[in-house]
Amino acid sequence: MPHLRFALSGLVLFALPVQAQDATPIPDSMASTLDTLLEKAFETDTGYQFVEDLTTEVGPRLAGSEAEARARDWAVAELEDLGFDTVRVEGFEIPYWSRLTDKASILSPAPQNLVITALGGSTSTPEGGIEAEIIRFESLAELQAANPAMVEGKIVFIDEKMTRTQDGSGYGMAVRKRRACAGEAIEKGGLACLIRSVGTQTSRFPHTGMMARGEAVGAGPAAALSPPDADQLSRLLERGPVTINLDIQVKTKETAPSGNVIAEITGSEKPEDIILLGCHLDSWDLATGAIDDGAGCGIVVGAAKLIKDLPEPPKRTIRVVLYGSEEVGLLGGRAYAREHAEELPNHIFAAESDFGADTIWQLDTNFGKGAMGHAKAIQQAVEPLGVAPGPNDARGGPDIFMLGMSGVPMIGARQNGWDYFDLHHTPDDTIDKVDPEKIQQNVAVYTAFTYLVAYSDWDLRAPASTTEMTGE
Amino acid sequence: MPHLRFALSGLVLFALPVQAQDATPIPDSMASTLDTLLEKAFETDTGYQFVEDLTTEVGPRLAGSEAEARARDWAVAELEDLGFDTVRVEGFEIPYWSRLTDKASILSPAPQNLVITALGGSTSTPEGGIEAEIIRFESLAELQAANPAMVEGKIVFIDEKMTRTQDGSGYGMAVRKRRACAGEAIEKGGLACLIRSVGTQTSRFPHTGMMARGEAVGAGPAAALSPPDADQLSRLLERGPVTINLDIQVKTKETAPSGNVIAEITGSEKPEDIILLGCHLDSWDLATGAIDDGAGCGIVVGAAKLIKDLPEPPKRTIRVVLYGSEEVGLLGGRAYAREHAEELPNHIFAAESDFGADTIWQLDTNFGKGAMGHAKAIQQAVEPLGVAPGPNDARGGPDIFMLGMSGVPMIGARQNGWDYFDLHHTPDDTIDKVDPEKIQQNVAVYTAFTYLVAYSDWDLRAPASTTEMTGE
Repeated sequence: MPHLRFALSGLVLFALPVQAQDATPIPDSMASTLDTLLEKAFETDTGYQFVEDLTTEVGPRLAGSEAEARARDWAVAELEDLGFDTVRVEGFEIPYWSRLTDKASILSPAPQNLVITALGGSTSTPEGGIEAEIIRFESLAELQAANPAMVEGKIVFIDEKMTRTQDGSGYGMAVRKRRACAGEAIEKGGLACLIRSVGTQTSRFPHTGMMARGEAVGAGPAAALSPPDADQLSRLLERGPVTINLDIQVKTKETAPSGNVIAEITGSEKPEDIILLGCHLDSWDLATGAIDDGAGCGIVVGAAKLIKDLPEPPKRTIRVVLYGSEEVGLLGGRAYAREHAEELPNHIFAAESDFGADTIWQLDTNFGKGAMGHAKAIQQAVEPLGVAPGPNDARGGPDIFMLGMSGVPMIGARQNGWDYFDLHHTPDDTIDKVDPEKIQQNVAVYTAFTYLVAYSDWDLRAPASTTEMTGE
Repeated sequence: MPHLRFALSGLVLFALPVQAQDATPIPDSMASTLDTLLEKAFETDTGYQFVEDLTTEVGPRLAGSEAEARARDWAVAELEDLGFDTVRVEGFEIPYWSRLTDKASILSPAPQNLVITALGGSTSTPEGGIEAEIIRFESLAELQAANPAMVEGKIVFIDEKMTRTQDGSGYGMAVRKRRACAGEAIEKGGLACLIRSVGTQTSRFPHTGMMARGEAVGAGPAAALSPPDADQLSRLLERGPVTINLDIQVKTKETAPSGNVIAEITGSEKPEDIILLGCHLDSWDLATGAIDDGAGCGIVVGAAKLIKDLPEPPKRTIRVVLYGSEEVGLLGGRAYAREHAEELPNHIFAAESDFGADTIWQLDTNFGKGAMGHAKAIQQAVEPLGVAPGPNDARGGPDIFMLGMSGVPMIGARQNGWDYFDLHHTPDDTIDKVDPEKIQQNVAVYTAFTYLVAYSDWDLRAPASTTEMTGE
């Protein structure tokens, strides 16, 4: 998932001292039901089984591909089997890109293959590839400052490394070179761009991802080297000039079908009130997308299923959205925000799971100032699951941040991302990396906050002045 | 083991009376020189630099290829630079095999690519590949017991796992399926063989290696699936029939040039006495062969270089042999044993480093019964390096075991192999996995035993009856 850094213009920026409001009291009957739900979360494996089945029975799910369409069909059948009240696909069209060939080899001084992957949106090289000398830059900034005469006729190589962090903040910085490299290289007369893979892995896997956004897509041929191959190229360049062949062939279509799969538990009292739980169904093509984002879909489906199985339906509608085409520009999220624009004021909150399969360690909110008591009640409910209370600045996952910008309250259940970028967007993102017990913890957390809000009348947008009115 | 400070002169005092022979005493002057040598082992990086340079400046070194020839040229230049007295190549011819294409994909029920690698010696499939149903066996034994009617017209898949062990003993068992699978499959009317990769890795790397020995090479198309892909296939087979396409294209030549690179420090008193330190220069083609066996070559070269730099030359000749074509049937080892058959009685001992780049934890010998005092002296000398004394049953590394069978005494400096088969024969065997400090410990151990024997008159073949005569 892309990490987004942006101004939340539509939301109040910072919470005042949180002790201003006490936690909203939870009625005993609800507290008791919640206890039972959380026990069930650790006794059932709907969440894990969903991601195992999806990654096995469908496999990789490239946006706009036949495989993504199969994933939608699969998900519809699965969600119907699980008993959701309504299951449907909301289709949309996307521009399509897929790799046909992506290979590179050193021609001199020491002929050998390099492990690369074309970046999403890369153009094709001439057939048989480009043969050219490499010019290496320590960073994107160094390329940007370079004299075009140095770059002309060469293949640019940006060797910038990514920093490992728990919250994934290293990704936003590292991804800049992926987005800008080809455009900068071509503008300076270069022939193509190679980057050190974004990611923290030390193994010989390359990391794919979109090369750029918007009009910059298709600026030129662009690929990522596995970290050991980036090291190899750097060591050779210390010894003298290096010439490589870079051969990328891609297939593009102006439009291809994609879609969001939506499943609901209809609210019994206020069916128009929507609680949105999101994830994305598409994956990159190199692997089966277990941690990105099969796991997220398993988590939100697992949580919704636990609530579906309660004897009483929720007051409010719970809507699970398995977004399509996230990886290629958050296109499912944008389509949803567009199609449901009029309904957004009815969205009570949105939460998206798209940061792997590790445990949740912090729960952030982004509620109105008058709803801090509700935030506290939620945070207290998940503390026994090992989750610390976080700030009121949640921005939401990639597919729902547009909703946040439109004023929809957000819950950010933050997963430990320490190892996430060892696997993310690589060929190694497979189901064996998913720990069923960690999925259960995630399901428990999503179940807790969804339950508390879906069975209450809490107004999570409540402005500061309505503080007195927000209790149950 | 970076900062060892110890004195060897007192070590003989700790010999326990558990065996008939006490440790052969080391003269003070030698003990003092050895102390200095071992300090230098941890202050210099000839060993690490050798493997880094080899893997960088040559890259992968497939037996019989142009790259292996480049490796020989590179090694000759490097060993001459290091100042060895004689450096030469002993050439021989081998049958040549290389992969051109090796790919597999599930056609139904869930189209997706599988990560595989052709096994060495595999035949080609028809162009475009074989399209057939998979039949899975838990083990080689299960395939062997299977009714041919079940196998006919199918692609056999043996899903047997390998056990992780420190001493690598799991490999011998696991490799049986690699050797026998294609032959058994074809004999029963199957079309090809797929195996779960030999190896302990959980990542999506396949493990190559020779499919068979001798005449069984070329029995049919044979490939290994990465472990996650083997899991994927198994999960799908639990759900119903699976059809795949397996496309392997290979290139073979009846003969291709290979060779052993030999460098010597000529003995000053008994130049005809040979101490052989071995490793192999060739690697599989998927990676740069850092742990298999660039590291081994770095270790033996590093040790020999420390001794070369002493003011006084050794009494006996130290011969470093960088074997060629080990991976494809120990062909360099066999060529050496054949060419040097008459000289073998002069081989004082042989030791080969070919088990990765981790620390040495035990030192085994295979000496005559009358030479146990020398074994003990050597073992006591390396104990401060964290090396335990081992039994007198060392068989030697792969290229020297033929020498052992001809009566050449052996030293087995056993490396920790716990993680070795996570990388061995996979695309991930690259220099970043080699820890320079661990190479230093290895160099120190090889230096210790080589020094003690090269500067003495020890007879390591001494029969039991000569016990009384083995002291200095």
